[in-house]
Amino acid sequence: MKINRNFDNLVPSYLFAEIAKRTNAYINANPDKKVIKMGIGDVTLPIPRVAVEALKSGADELGVKETFKGYPEYEGYDFAREAVAGYYKNFGVSVDADEVFISDGAKSDTGNIGDIFGADNTVLITDPVYPVYVDSNIMAGRKIIFANGNRENGFCAMPDESVHADIIYLCSPNNPTGAVYSAEQLKTWVDYAIKNDAIILFDSAYEAFITDDSPRSIFAIEGARNCAIEFCSLSKTAGFTGTRCGYTVIPKELERDGHNIHDLWYRRQATKFNGVSYPVQCAAAAVFSDEGLAQIKENLSYYQENARIIASVLDELGIWYTGGKNSPYIWLECPDGMGSWEFFDYLLNNAQVVGTPGEGFGSQGKGYLRLTSFNDRENTIEAVERIKKLLKK
Amino acid sequence: MKINRNFDNLVPSYLFAEIAKRTNAYINANPDKKVIKMGIGDVTLPIPRVAVEALKSGADELGVKETFKGYPEYEGYDFAREAVAGYYKNFGVSVDADEVFISDGAKSDTGNIGDIFGADNTVLITDPVYPVYVDSNIMAGRKIIFANGNRENGFCAMPDESVHADIIYLCSPNNPTGAVYSAEQLKTWVDYAIKNDAIILFDSAYEAFITDDSPRSIFAIEGARNCAIEFCSLSKTAGFTGTRCGYTVIPKELERDGHNIHDLWYRRQATKFNGVSYPVQCAAAAVFSDEGLAQIKENLSYYQENARIIASVLDELGIWYTGGKNSPYIWLECPDGMGSWEFFDYLLNNAQVVGTPGEGFGSQGKGYLRLTSFNDRENTIEAVERIKKLLKK
Repeated sequence: MKINRNFDNLVPSYLFAEIAKRTNAYINANPDKKVIKMGIGDVTLPIPRVAVEALKSGADELGVKETFKGYPEYEGYDFAREAVAGYYKNFGVSVDADEVFISDGAKSDTGNIGDIFGADNTVLITDPVYPVYVDSNIMAGRKIIFANGNRENGFCAMPDESVHADIIYLCSPNNPTGAVYSAEQLKTWVDYAIKNDAIILFDSAYEAFITDDSPRSIFAIEGARNCAIEFCSLSKTAGFTGTRCGYTVIPKELERDGHNIHDLWYRRQATKFNGVSYPVQCAAAAVFSDEGLAQIKENLSYYQENARIIASVLDELGIWYTGGKNSPYIWLECPDGMGSWEFFDYLLNNAQVVGTPGEGFGSQGKGYLRLTSFNDRENTIEAVERIKKLLKK
Repeated sequence: MKINRNFDNLVPSYLFAEIAKRTNAYINANPDKKVIKMGIGDVTLPIPRVAVEALKSGADELGVKETFKGYPEYEGYDFAREAVAGYYKNFGVSVDADEVFISDGAKSDTGNIGDIFGADNTVLITDPVYPVYVDSNIMAGRKIIFANGNRENGFCAMPDESVHADIIYLCSPNNPTGAVYSAEQLKTWVDYAIKNDAIILFDSAYEAFITDDSPRSIFAIEGARNCAIEFCSLSKTAGFTGTRCGYTVIPKELERDGHNIHDLWYRRQATKFNGVSYPVQCAAAAVFSDEGLAQIKENLSYYQENARIIASVLDELGIWYTGGKNSPYIWLECPDGMGSWEFFDYLLNNAQVVGTPGEGFGSQGKGYLRLTSFNDRENTIEAVERIKKLLKK
């Protein structure tokens, strides 16, 4: 019996364990100090009322013989798929309901999508990056190359035309940097993908944070239907990190290597997945109703205002950053040439504020720190006031 | 860009499409006849009241900031893992809560578990079989060999000691045959697995139907903790096919090829899965409470009585079968040497009863038909009365 030897190539991440260790050591040594955690990567506000009600009425239906629901369709109930397609329409993108696959979250689908691709493809990933793209491809034994984000390109890494790639992961608004691609930049990626006969795996998990005219979907870009798959989730849109629902859109006409990609993914899901919980699908559909969209706006605005508050203090201090608008994340250059961990310690010891060292997200994150807007208003204001006081020259 | 060429080796299954086609053709030609579907593979009774209440109170918690739940643990909430471990205790099997991984269903886990194993393993699968084991291993490009079930071994296929295997799929009570392995037979499989340095992937999805002293878990067998992973689900136990919750048990001490298997699976889940919906985990834990267990007993008894009714008519007719007790399935030999589809048509045309042709589950299913106990009492009684009238000599 042989295990999958590719697992030996995974690099264990001690990022969050190390953050917890240093933070707890400080708290133990300074029990009188109030530490504010500004590295929170999870939402903190409750799911909207329509979602609670839909979960509950879905549960009631399961408890009565006449309305009981057994195995769901692998690709999701029509009512949920139609709700997603309707949501896209709100920002001017046309997606057919039968191109939508309802899932238990974008993470599962971005990880599992690799099942339908050969191991002998070259994968292009932007750096810094959400670690799942890298790790799931290491597990599959694929060759990985990186496109570097940096201050020069505003952490919007662009393709190197001299390099070939088969599979391209893009995330916009980006985790961890909050940077957002413009339509022109995405068109460059689409053209590159088509030239390389590649597929773009586009993670739009943070699209609901976009407030300007930046593209909220890769399918807003001409040509994308012939080269892209989009993954999204209600986790950040509606606080569904604990409720679990996402969706993946594969255009019906997307073909590669003589195969229809939509059909391949359906076959994969039919074999290794059994659909999403009925009450959860009810809740997802409720979020995309007019009433639901109005309710999620409240939470999104709350986080957006937190992000604006953080960004405005960085502006005042003259600290360079990405994100802050169109994203719950603020990705800042550590002042005075400090390293990620050096600045982490400096903030913790002198302002009792906890961030996330950027180098935990890839080599290009060295010298950067991520703050998030998921703490509450009061703490966010207090944290940035402390940072301002500490760093003001 | 290359797709995963192993998908080309999948054989499309037209089983259920062909059943629907023939059934609909009959109904259209005979609109006055009442057709009874005895091939239903899904449960039909509602989930227990405790599960409905737990889903609803979990939903309420998600809707309030103070009790809101974000990302769950990849391996499940402690309360859910402890509930599963407590359930095992009820039938005398000791499993630690931290050996339990909560999942969205046994199908996902039996499919995805292959991620941690090399492609160059030989997989042994019993025939006839639930198609997921075969298809997920075809997708991974593994060599598959079969152990045949037949009338002689009562569809309890046993290992051929002269043949080597690395990964062994067993399902008991079996889908589709309803056959149940004895403790002695499972001990033979465990000994074979240890001798071959293999791992048994044991699907116990139908264990709640066992009423005699047949093993309800592979871990009731000495040595199994050193060679087995168990997959189970609340789908059939508590009618959770639409609610979606399962669990996988990997003993902490299980090692192969220099690696701890529990750790490998944790790493896989941490990378490609984000845990199960909080209200669904609440519902699962509620099912395993004393009150929940009492409530699911009602539904299980209803199906078990249906199965007994079907089996007693087959006894009367002298038709050989497996299942009928310890299982919701009845797997019968087609009378008079008829083929699976021939008997399917004969029953449809002459008794207006729809079964599932056995050959849809593998080559050893030829000449057999599956009936299930998931229809309601009245229809079940009417169906077997018609069968009795038709086949009585």
